Amino acid sequence: MIHDIDYYRNLIEGAIRGYRLPDSPAGLYDPIRYAMDCGGKRIRPILCMAMCEALGGSAADVVNQALAIEMFHNFTLLHDDVMDHADMRRGRPTVHVRWDERTAILSGDAMLSIASELVNEGVDAATASECRRLFHRTAMEVYEGQQYDMDFEDRTDVTVDDYLDMIRLKTSVLLGCACRMGAIVAGADDECQKYAYRFGELLGLAFQLRDDYLDTYGDPIMFGKEIGGDIVNDKKTWLLITALAEDTSGVVTQELAMPSEQYHKIERIKRVYDDLGLPERCRELIERYIADANRCVARLGLKPVDANFFTDLASKSSTRSN
Amino acid sequence: MIHDIDYYRNLIEGAIRGYRLPDSPAGLYDPIRYAMDCGGKRIRPILCMAMCEALGGSAADVVNQALAIEMFHNFTLLHDDVMDHADMRRGRPTVHVRWDERTAILSGDAMLSIASELVNEGVDAATASECRRLFHRTAMEVYEGQQYDMDFEDRTDVTVDDYLDMIRLKTSVLLGCACRMGAIVAGADDECQKYAYRFGELLGLAFQLRDDYLDTYGDPIMFGKEIGGDIVNDKKTWLLITALAEDTSGVVTQELAMPSEQYHKIERIKRVYDDLGLPERCRELIERYIADANRCVARLGLKPVDANFFTDLASKSSTRSN
Repeated sequence: MIHDIDYYRNLIEGAIRGYRLPDSPAGLYDPIRYAMDCGGKRIRPILCMAMCEALGGSAADVVNQALAIEMFHNFTLLHDDVMDHADMRRGRPTVHVRWDERTAILSGDAMLSIASELVNEGVDAATASECRRLFHRTAMEVYEGQQYDMDFEDRTDVTVDDYLDMIRLKTSVLLGCACRMGAIVAGADDECQKYAYRFGELLGLAFQLRDDYLDTYGDPIMFGKEIGGDIVNDKKTWLLITALAEDTSGVVTQELAMPSEQYHKIERIKRVYDDLGLPERCRELIERYIADANRCVARLGLKPVDANFFTDLASKSSTRSN
Repeated sequence: MIHDIDYYRNLIEGAIRGYRLPDSPAGLYDPIRYAMDCGGKRIRPILCMAMCEALGGSAADVVNQALAIEMFHNFTLLHDDVMDHADMRRGRPTVHVRWDERTAILSGDAMLSIASELVNEGVDAATASECRRLFHRTAMEVYEGQQYDMDFEDRTDVTVDDYLDMIRLKTSVLLGCACRMGAIVAGADDECQKYAYRFGELLGLAFQLRDDYLDTYGDPIMFGKEIGGDIVNDKKTWLLITALAEDTSGVVTQELAMPSEQYHKIERIKRVYDDLGLPERCRELIERYIADANRCVARLGLKPVDANFFTDLASKSSTRSN
């Protein structure tokens, strides 16, 4: 039987607090505690545990795997922030700012090692092996996605399909992995595991597109950061790539080559987006992913109340404002 | 039956070349190929496979574990070079110089993930679990050693025991892990595994102390890099820590606070080392570790010809000039 979202959130927060790290050397372990105590949404471990329970397992059976995925996710954020020279994350200084860069690299490495070990824990050997292989394949895909994202910065020929495949690797596969891991530990059959995975993957695509949308069209107070950062940084999002392909006014190309002052650059590019109807089309694309995700839920053969947990979560993700 | 060192070196070089990485994204996978194709000594995988064969196993049974350890070792070098801003490694530009820093971070992450997966491969589930736990514990110790090494830079109270424990963690435990992993896959009993581990650990201590010794007293042509780098960088090695504790002339303290021009700094500190008899004492300490390591070999109950493989290797490590 499935519980509510707060139940799973409390479980994972408890597992994070309960995971004992040594005190010394503090320079290695304090940043890990800091990175994990971040007030994130915990969407991945919640999905993992809820999927396990919806498919007949118990959240306690998969809590190590859920923690492994959350640890891995926070490790990628930590190293991404070093690579992107990002100073703030969720309203706090990033690890490489609060400590220093080499501390951030080393603590991240340790988090990856811990995650790789945790994913095997608390399940029988055959299940551990399945979880581990899925986790490893996913990790490699996440690195590939991050590499493509970095490659895109210097490329001028990125298509919408390239972009969607990049965010699939960088973001979505880990949500797919979380759902499938829950299904594996619940003992679900292969077909069911695949629908669970695909649900997570589609949710991840919707989630990332919503993130891109909010970066330009969000309410700064709700979104928690300034609007227009992607535009200022020429970040190749779905909005920018589509505009580059369709804009006949030349404004976007011009702003990339010789940008106006920040405020005007945002206004000018947003105007192109609006004229092309991109906000509506982006919302429609998100809705299509959510509809596909819900079709996957329907194939899982869940009790209606359990299916609602996932469709509600999908619909909240597609309309969230933060 | 044990083979000669070239046999194991060829085996691991073959395994490295045979490990298939995808072509794309090149920015992720090319640096891994570059880092692994480094012309290193391959001492860890050689120890791992030789120990397995000396204890009744076959090198082929443990080649994935040997490769995992070599991959992990090269990952630590890659990330250490980023952390230390080191430009050259084994006569070639480091990955973050040849590519860039974020490429080095991401490729290193992927190497750690690959190593964590490989350590489970090609053995039965119970053996995989033993190998994995040992590998994980070792990885965490290596990170701790690296952190202590960084902490020592700003500390003025580092003792010889602190230093020996730091190099044990940073360097020696991975050699211990390599030997024990060979023993595990050979099916050796726990006592035998412990002596195998301790042999590798003592060899690692001797190896690192020899490295420190050669940095000051080596032949630059044989050593392959300039002599005196540790002195110039105030690196807290056994030599410097011992000199700081025993030097009554005040020269060492003075050179740390207000260094002479590079050449004179090296000459003045070397003079103190010589006056205190440190080169001889350092060589004696190395010899003691090697004698202890050989006592561990004697407890393994090997055929004399097989025991000689390890004692020869130990004696070469303690007198090597590169």
